[in-house]
Amino acid sequence: MKIGVVGFGYWGPNLVRNFQSTPSVDGVVCFDTSEKRLQVAKQKFASLETVTRYEDLLRRDDVEAIAIATPVSTHFSLGMKALEADKHVLLEKPMAESGAQCEQMVDLAAKKKLVLMVDHTFIYTGAVRKIKDMIAEGRLGEIMYFDSVRVNLGLFQHDTNVLWDLAPHDLSIMDYLIGQDPIGVSAIGAKHFNDMEDIAYLTVRYNSQLLAHFHVNWMSPVKVRKILIGGSKLMVVYDDMEPSEKVKVYDKGVDIKERESIYKVLVQYRTGDMWAPKIDLGEALSLMCNDFVDAIKNGRRPTTDGRAGMKVVRILEAAQQSLRAGGTMVNLGQ
Amino acid sequence: MKIGVVGFGYWGPNLVRNFQSTPSVDGVVCFDTSEKRLQVAKQKFASLETVTRYEDLLRRDDVEAIAIATPVSTHFSLGMKALEADKHVLLEKPMAESGAQCEQMVDLAAKKKLVLMVDHTFIYTGAVRKIKDMIAEGRLGEIMYFDSVRVNLGLFQHDTNVLWDLAPHDLSIMDYLIGQDPIGVSAIGAKHFNDMEDIAYLTVRYNSQLLAHFHVNWMSPVKVRKILIGGSKLMVVYDDMEPSEKVKVYDKGVDIKERESIYKVLVQYRTGDMWAPKIDLGEALSLMCNDFVDAIKNGRRPTTDGRAGMKVVRILEAAQQSLRAGGTMVNLGQ
Amino acid sequence: MKIGVVGFGYWGPNLVRNFQSTPSVDGVVCFDTSEKRLQVAKQKFASLETVTRYEDLLRRDDVEAIAIATPVSTHFSLGMKALEADKHVLLEKPMAESGAQCEQMVDLAAKKKLVLMVDHTFIYTGAVRKIKDMIAEGRLGEIMYFDSVRVNLGLFQHDTNVLWDLAPHDLSIMDYLIGQDPIGVSAIGAKHFNDMEDIAYLTVRYNSQLLAHFHVNWMSPVKVRKILIGGSKLMVVYDDMEPSEKVKVYDKGVDIKERESIYKVLVQYRTGDMWAPKIDLGEALSLMCNDFVDAIKNGRRPTTDGRAGMKVVRILEAAQQSLRAGGTMVNLGQ
Amino acid sequence: MKIGVVGFGYWGPNLVRNFQSTPSVDGVVCFDTSEKRLQVAKQKFASLETVTRYEDLLRRDDVEAIAIATPVSTHFSLGMKALEADKHVLLEKPMAESGAQCEQMVDLAAKKKLVLMVDHTFIYTGAVRKIKDMIAEGRLGEIMYFDSVRVNLGLFQHDTNVLWDLAPHDLSIMDYLIGQDPIGVSAIGAKHFNDMEDIAYLTVRYNSQLLAHFHVNWMSPVKVRKILIGGSKLMVVYDDMEPSEKVKVYDKGVDIKERESIYKVLVQYRTGDMWAPKIDLGEALSLMCNDFVDAIKNGRRPTTDGRAGMKVVRILEAAQQSLRAGGTMVNLGQ
Repeated sequence: MKIGVVGFGYWGPNLVRNFQSTPSVDGVVCFDTSEKRLQVAKQKFASLETVTRYEDLLRRDDVEAIAIATPVSTHFSLGMKALEADKHVLLEKPMAESGAQCEQMVDLAAKKKLVLMVDHTFIYTGAVRKIKDMIAEGRLGEIMYFDSVRVNLGLFQHDTNVLWDLAPHDLSIMDYLIGQDPIGVSAIGAKHFNDMEDIAYLTVRYNSQLLAHFHVNWMSPVKVRKILIGGSKLMVVYDDMEPSEKVKVYDKGVDIKERESIYKVLVQYRTGDMWAPKIDLGEALSLMCNDFVDAIKNGRRPTTDGRAGMKVVRILEAAQQSLRAGGTMVNLGQ
Repeated sequence: MKIGVVGFGYWGPNLVRNFQSTPSVDGVVCFDTSEKRLQVAKQKFASLETVTRYEDLLRRDDVEAIAIATPVSTHFSLGMKALEADKHVLLEKPMAESGAQCEQMVDLAAKKKLVLMVDHTFIYTGAVRKIKDMIAEGRLGEIMYFDSVRVNLGLFQHDTNVLWDLAPHDLSIMDYLIGQDPIGVSAIGAKHFNDMEDIAYLTVRYNSQLLAHFHVNWMSPVKVRKILIGGSKLMVVYDDMEPSEKVKVYDKGVDIKERESIYKVLVQYRTGDMWAPKIDLGEALSLMCNDFVDAIKNGRRPTTDGRAGMKVVRILEAAQQSLRAGGTMVNLGQ
Repeated sequence: MKIGVVGFGYWGPNLVRNFQSTPSVDGVVCFDTSEKRLQVAKQKFASLETVTRYEDLLRRDDVEAIAIATPVSTHFSLGMKALEADKHVLLEKPMAESGAQCEQMVDLAAKKKLVLMVDHTFIYTGAVRKIKDMIAEGRLGEIMYFDSVRVNLGLFQHDTNVLWDLAPHDLSIMDYLIGQDPIGVSAIGAKHFNDMEDIAYLTVRYNSQLLAHFHVNWMSPVKVRKILIGGSKLMVVYDDMEPSEKVKVYDKGVDIKERESIYKVLVQYRTGDMWAPKIDLGEALSLMCNDFVDAIKNGRRPTTDGRAGMKVVRILEAAQQSLRAGGTMVNLGQ
Repeated sequence: MKIGVVGFGYWGPNLVRNFQSTPSVDGVVCFDTSEKRLQVAKQKFASLETVTRYEDLLRRDDVEAIAIATPVSTHFSLGMKALEADKHVLLEKPMAESGAQCEQMVDLAAKKKLVLMVDHTFIYTGAVRKIKDMIAEGRLGEIMYFDSVRVNLGLFQHDTNVLWDLAPHDLSIMDYLIGQDPIGVSAIGAKHFNDMEDIAYLTVRYNSQLLAHFHVNWMSPVKVRKILIGGSKLMVVYDDMEPSEKVKVYDKGVDIKERESIYKVLVQYRTGDMWAPKIDLGEALSLMCNDFVDAIKNGRRPTTDGRAGMKVVRILEAAQQSLRAGGTMVNLGQ
């Protein structure tokens, strides 16, 4: 099988490089509207094939799957055309501009029994997989909160705000780890240079006392990528800026000694060991590419399928609505 | 002049110790409802006088000023009685349970020309004073955001939630540094053990693109006390957990190269030096006590007067209202 | 039993405070040559007795033990007099100016069956005790190296160099943890302001491939207190500047796969979890005082007895000799 | 001009990549004894020429310069042959196995007026260049000490010990920054797995109170690359593990108030601001390649010429001698 990679911009070269070394992939064919970029691509990757028209890519029978790494505004039209041409589709995050667009693609892929996947790369990191394992084994207990900070200086985008740029990473991690369906979203932000928010705070509410909160910021002097997860049994700090000890697990919490009423509770602090489990530092993108190809070969769902991408986009869409309304809670009708 | 200290619990001993070494203070008289605590106080402070009835304290002519370090629910009644007895008053934070209570005390103090002060200790730290100087000199440029995180494990309180417990520190710092009048407040939170929020996020809005946000949390495995201030010229990180370099100033930001329209802005990143100015690490509480006594002696306003305390309580009050309403923005009528 | 504390300078007040709350201690009597310092002592500690002549202290029958917190040059004469007066003796570190002085005190104490102890406070910290437990259980495997860095700005001393000032801490920790007898010592250093070394490097050699090394420095812009211990099974980093996670244990090392000859060894790296065991953060000095009093009461050896103090002084003495000789190895005849 | 790169192992590919984009370089010709590695090289670098015999490389007139990235034991013979064939030569560090070998190459290059350079890459980093500028401007004052720590887990080498593997980096940095001629060297180390030291401490002495010390270690659980430089006016911490603020400058030190005699000096601590100057984070290797080519074109000395390489090897040689002798000081005859 060959893979078509659409767009040789910021992320496309990473896809080409990884698909070239993915088992069962016989070759990569790259499409870009810019001849110049295709020339760069050929210099960089000796055995790469290129095409200058999307139709030429879709028409090829040896190209079974299409990976789309173009601006989000083009995802829907490129993705639908690929599905209609019976290609399996991998989309960069965020999946599309609206939940409705996502839903159409999910439905078409389901009808045609094609794999539809979104590249939520972080899900494939050793750190996130390690945390997922611990949650799945019940070691964290009940999750009380999920607090994420992803801030740094730039990069300003002209076609998207900081929420759509940075929050998809953390929303996809949250969805993967927590697995529950949120019921409401609120967001606030501010703009300082153009009509796009460069700082935003996002809250996601669940049908429980679980509270999820996200701080995304293009105007921070320091780079922070940190997620705190408070469980009733263990607590986790996932700091992606740490070179090796990215995940720290704390045997800290509160033991309830007596509960006469909701007003009278005797709590006692628990402070035990901290440990940093060994994390697989292999390239997440390589695992993601493998998952895509393997899902195609075996006719199964990939870990981050179209539904996962749609959930993230629906939260972003509701958050955008809340931003415009000054921060009111927007319900997520499921 | 002698100072009456009311309440020998968690904070009272610090007030006694500091007032005992404040110039112009001839002695400290301590009142507490517990005879046992007063005995402990006498053992700890050899020259301390004690009284077992509040009235006895207020009746003494040599006691010109009263410092109140009792639970917040008693601040208003104790404070009003002291003002009525013509005593200058220092109140621990938060000043009172409501803006209305604060206002009554402010009005009475003004009428009687008495000093009314709130112990917002952080304002007197070398770190906050250094940042204030830089802002006052215009070195930060226009303030774009103020982001504060104050989280740790415990201490759970039975009579207050995490917002009223931790946020007064950061709200008082914000008010001192920013100096503008907020127009609205929203807050969200969650409860996991009793009927008090143990985690909360608070947003304060201004009549500009300045956005202030606060994360307070009693359930964090790590202790964080960090404030980011984004200015158009310089950015500041104030990390109170750092032993010496508490304030870091970054010559980082965005230079606007061209602004054709709000949609088309050419921004360019600026990354220069970072520096950590030398910070006075002297005890802030000692400076606060001096400010109180000096204000009394010279008939002037202290830095953190009743109005400053009232502003913080009004924000907390509005935040509490927002919390109950699920996070809607609550206007701060000025 | 009452305890006599000699010297109310930098460390004396800590001894008074801790002995006053040590079980079985009925009172503390303080001796200092300065009347002024004794007055300060009385103000600070209400129930403290004071004497102005050392003989008066030694003559008192209710004073069973003497704790000496004076400059090191006085330790021997004050200590010998106390032992001759049948008092148990606690000496601050370093124990004396020479191994010969230490030996005389050790011998006299043994003859008189008196407790002779040296205040190597760090041995009583939760961090060092935790590491000791792990080593004793064999969890670290064979110890390959012990690397210590204790550097900061100042305090310059006029009567001692940086080696005698700072290294006793780390040498006592090493001796406690490793427990082997060193065979040789070398040291190099430099002087920049007076005739005392302000920076020094010390190496301690054993009858094995274990290598111990110490960096002490009064001229460092940053404060570091860090010990690395390399074991064949586990490795430990003990960072005393960390507020809570002072001890980190690494499941890292080298597994030898094949060993054809000493020239041909196939090693394989092992990288597993890191963990920070919960450390008792209680005051070490309080435990030390308890150990002293309990050793007296039960006629047993304290953990850090005169022999432990003597070992440290002998290393310092040899190091001083090496320093003067430009760094040659000085044998430690046992 | 074309450049011949000898050896396509660990470092060779970096040289090929950088020389391919160095101005004035028309092409790169790679020689390796392994046909397989040359095939890999060709796949990776499309326009790369390869030869399978060293003589073929030296015989080519279009190849003006040879960059040698092979094991150190081959440096001398390969380097001499290249110089004899009238090629300019760049050698990886360490330059050769002995000072005598270095001297022969330096002499031959001088006689033939060829550029002889050693790839001390760190000299070309923004961090080291920034520190050099500050020292050159006299801002640090007199340098009192240079303390370097370069430790991590592995990589074990079979043909060299930890000293020859890691110390060349720090010795070349020291030589570049300090610029003085050392007079003596001592070193101690230990072996735990084969006949090669895996931990070593190296001291370099000067004709002054300047003291330089190096800790290199293959058996550390944590990776540290940190250099402290104590100047009489300013002090510097260069931490290469910091992602952006690699150099921190401290306005800390000691002011001498009075100096009656060397025994009586009144010193006073000075603690001012710390700052982290902006560092050029561009690739050092690219600058090194440019320096080599530019030196050839303009017939000038490169920054890290043969003499610089020889100084480092002479220190290593003396250190090795000291290691074998158990740590005695070995004089560096100038």
